[in-house]
Amino acid sequence: MIILAYDIVRLEEKLIVKEFRKRNVKLNLLNVTSYPLHFSNGFLRKATVALIRPVSMYRAFYTAVVLETNNVYTINSSETILTCGDKILAYKKLLENKLPIPETVVAFTTDSALQAYNIIGFPVIDKPPIGSWGRLVSLIESSKEGILVAEHRENLPSTQLKVHVVQEYVPTSNMDIRCLVIGDQVLGCIKRIATSGDWRSNVARGGKVEAFKLDEELAELSIKAAKAVNAEIISVDILVHPEKGYLVNEVNGVPEFKGFMKATGINVPEKIVEYVISKVKK
Amino acid sequence: MIILAYDIVRLEEKLIVKEFRKRNVKLNLLNVTSYPLHFSNGFLRKATVALIRPVSMYRAFYTAVVLETNNVYTINSSETILTCGDKILAYKKLLENKLPIPETVVAFTTDSALQAYNIIGFPVIDKPPIGSWGRLVSLIESSKEGILVAEHRENLPSTQLKVHVVQEYVPTSNMDIRCLVIGDQVLGCIKRIATSGDWRSNVARGGKVEAFKLDEELAELSIKAAKAVNAEIISVDILVHPEKGYLVNEVNGVPEFKGFMKATGINVPEKIVEYVISKVKK
Amino acid sequence: MIILAYDIVRLEEKLIVKEFRKRNVKLNLLNVTSYPLHFSNGFLRKATVALIRPVSMYRAFYTAVVLETNNVYTINSSETILTCGDKILAYKKLLENKLPIPETVVAFTTDSALQAYNIIGFPVIDKPPIGSWGRLVSLIESSKEGILVAEHRENLPSTQLKVHVVQEYVPTSNMDIRCLVIGDQVLGCIKRIATSGDWRSNVARGGKVEAFKLDEELAELSIKAAKAVNAEIISVDILVHPEKGYLVNEVNGVPEFKGFMKATGINVPEKIVEYVISKVKK
Amino acid sequence: MIILAYDIVRLEEKLIVKEFRKRNVKLNLLNVTSYPLHFSNGFLRKATVALIRPVSMYRAFYTAVVLETNNVYTINSSETILTCGDKILAYKKLLENKLPIPETVVAFTTDSALQAYNIIGFPVIDKPPIGSWGRLVSLIESSKEGILVAEHRENLPSTQLKVHVVQEYVPTSNMDIRCLVIGDQVLGCIKRIATSGDWRSNVARGGKVEAFKLDEELAELSIKAAKAVNAEIISVDILVHPEKGYLVNEVNGVPEFKGFMKATGINVPEKIVEYVISKVKK
Repeated sequence: MIILAYDIVRLEEKLIVKEFRKRNVKLNLLNVTSYPLHFSNGFLRKATVALIRPVSMYRAFYTAVVLETNNVYTINSSETILTCGDKILAYKKLLENKLPIPETVVAFTTDSALQAYNIIGFPVIDKPPIGSWGRLVSLIESSKEGILVAEHRENLPSTQLKVHVVQEYVPTSNMDIRCLVIGDQVLGCIKRIATSGDWRSNVARGGKVEAFKLDEELAELSIKAAKAVNAEIISVDILVHPEKGYLVNEVNGVPEFKGFMKATGINVPEKIVEYVISKVKK
Repeated sequence: MIILAYDIVRLEEKLIVKEFRKRNVKLNLLNVTSYPLHFSNGFLRKATVALIRPVSMYRAFYTAVVLETNNVYTINSSETILTCGDKILAYKKLLENKLPIPETVVAFTTDSALQAYNIIGFPVIDKPPIGSWGRLVSLIESSKEGILVAEHRENLPSTQLKVHVVQEYVPTSNMDIRCLVIGDQVLGCIKRIATSGDWRSNVARGGKVEAFKLDEELAELSIKAAKAVNAEIISVDILVHPEKGYLVNEVNGVPEFKGFMKATGINVPEKIVEYVISKVKK
Repeated sequence: MIILAYDIVRLEEKLIVKEFRKRNVKLNLLNVTSYPLHFSNGFLRKATVALIRPVSMYRAFYTAVVLETNNVYTINSSETILTCGDKILAYKKLLENKLPIPETVVAFTTDSALQAYNIIGFPVIDKPPIGSWGRLVSLIESSKEGILVAEHRENLPSTQLKVHVVQEYVPTSNMDIRCLVIGDQVLGCIKRIATSGDWRSNVARGGKVEAFKLDEELAELSIKAAKAVNAEIISVDILVHPEKGYLVNEVNGVPEFKGFMKATGINVPEKIVEYVISKVKK
Repeated sequence: MIILAYDIVRLEEKLIVKEFRKRNVKLNLLNVTSYPLHFSNGFLRKATVALIRPVSMYRAFYTAVVLETNNVYTINSSETILTCGDKILAYKKLLENKLPIPETVVAFTTDSALQAYNIIGFPVIDKPPIGSWGRLVSLIESSKEGILVAEHRENLPSTQLKVHVVQEYVPTSNMDIRCLVIGDQVLGCIKRIATSGDWRSNVARGGKVEAFKLDEELAELSIKAAKAVNAEIISVDILVHPEKGYLVNEVNGVPEFKGFMKATGINVPEKIVEYVISKVKK
């Protein structure tokens, strides 16, 4: 039995289910918002593999944790989901594997964030360690803007959102490259270009996507990034630094791929489902 | 060079510093609320070992992450701090090592929490995966109380605080045992007894402490729990189940030990400092 | 020109617009989520009357405040919307007008809330001063449940949600009466009965509604309650105390009336629109 | 009997108590964090006058509400405390009394806030309607900074903190004037000058204070502002606009006066206590 764990059903999940159905595979849809996850659950233990798809990072993470304790093989593993979901953890793994990232400083208070801005030099990026779709990712061009951001951040209610991940701003003409890796293969890459007055290229912010020709360096970097975080299915966001070249900016352990499919024409759900089934057979 | 990383200076940190001073060890006090943590920092790289003591779990965790990336040996490691700090992760590690814990179910919504209460059977404990000093740990004796708790939990602002760790209530006469482990030795144990109308035995809630005679089973369980989460310095909270016997309830990777010292007379800072120095020499 | 100020379009707003259209009245739909409200706005000043319908209490209140400063007659006035929206303010006005309410104590901390429970005597109700649909309204039957609620309340992020409005529990077989008043007329009353395991009768919680025969006492009480808070369009929630008789529990200055229409067959939007137009003509 | 209602004891409250003691007046210290406030309380009803001093605006407001319902004369009244505490309400009262304020627009969403910035023209101030000591008061010089602030504001947990009060920035060389009014007399004025890199002159932000010579225009404006919000004891913050002249920026119904005393040498607690006692005698 294969489990598809989800909370919200996006187009991605619908397409994945369709591909499973096509192959007549016994699939169990696990809605983690209505199913309590017992650490020792007879039903869950019957599964061999689970594809983890909840949109909420912590739900995805905890779902994987409990399934693994029930001896289910999870794609991705809880460790990978958390590492990708927490930017500070992700940078650690990338740096330990000698992969290039933007220069980064972690700060816990307004005072140390202001110091961090000066260490990096304006303009800087300041973002919390968790969060998706570019949420709260701030481009800061002066001390005054830094105070503005830091003071608001202090008033956010969650401890993690108060942590500052301060980075050099990579002048990329407001675009980034996103490559999708499954197993040890790069499916392809897209270019995301910011529009509508925001400098962030996130699709959720109206960013436009187009296919991007995959070169060897990009392929190698993406696969190494996936390996660094032990991911089986992952998207890798890459910035092009004018001098340093490719830098890994973020990795996503529960990747969305709607925009990717549209831009590249690649049938991502088919690749995912084939990969998951290949794991069952082992 | 040894680093002592801290945010708030408690009695514990003062005593640790004193012990270091006694030994004429070069100690660097790293206030993580005022020092920005660079992923590649020449100064930090000079350290061989760091003792991680911030009170805030996420500050302790991220401090360890950045120090490790700078090749500093951290006590405890970031992985251990996070595993101890996140009860769901901790239970996974304990179960994977066949250690006994209270029966536990994870739930993400009010609906699935109510189901979880019924799976376990009232009375149940419901607590968020993160948090210290018994904060938000709720003893729920009926569906009606469950709705009360779950609805309030939904209104909390952080994603993690909305997650329910639902457990069997262990009728322990409102007491638990806390053992302190350093390296592969149990320093000793204390008994914490709830007072003043609260069923929780946390010292921060007015719980009283007294020394508790360490038996072999307790010693073995504590050391196994420490090993399960790869901890070097850790406190292990243990409940005595009337039928199941000892159950590991929580582990703490940045342990407080003021109450422990008072009850047992053991000089904990001395033991900690000796352990840390032994690691430098290796 | 008449303004209909709204944020979310519910069935209520659709029906109101339809009634205005029928009468060929020049109506301006003001979506307060997209229109900035200038304290001195030429366009707004052209309006004579505004019907205030945002679902969010503070949006309704501030919209009324700015419109009034622009010399627009608002139904209800900002003062009425706030008084109805803040239960502590509402009780003051009701008591000053010698209207019966459940016995009530205000408390700011867990400590004083626990005292308040004992002053009233269990079972008690504890609710925050703001909020709709019975949200966070807690029935507390013991000190232990009180601690449960109070501790969670302390962790809520807004100052107002931390305030305790502690009241005697009125044993009403989980039902209440809601009367709708327009101008100085009671349109009618409904009975709301709690279902599905919750003791609260709110329709948003699955409460059932049926028409309730209006007697003279109820009519008088409703109109006096409306007058006490200077309301022109208002719903009055009334509890039947076994000894004290009718008690005013809550008033709502931006009333929903979908359930009321269904149960009574009364065309509420027609009455509202006629009332609003009558105010323009004056 | 006179009541002094407080939550935190600042220097101000200590000095006030001392002045009362000097005069042998029967004073009842009411700690609102430990005393539950009953709407019908025999003890409270014995008081004739209450001086309302809690630091938290909502605690001050609700304390006054309950005391008034118990027939106690409150200084300031609940209405005044709320009006001063809510900037949108305060501006309404000031404008209705034809007093000059900075040009102001209220907005509820990021979208309408961005429109509001353009209506006013950069640079603008954006602040929430509630809050003290300049907290979250943002100086915004471009659309990009506006997006930065608005997005963070959306993530704040309280409804009121999400509301935008957008105003023209008054170029005052980072200073403002604060006048203290008791009854119908202006005690004096101080000038607050921003320091240490922040443009805000709040004393809590390191602003420096010095005495400011009171002229007739200032005196008249302060008294009119006090009257506009029905205040008996109030501080009035005034900006000097290069063309428009004096503008009332904020009013404070529970004023701090430590800095004022130091800069002017005026014995404020004596004046307050004399005023309060004069009210008892009437």
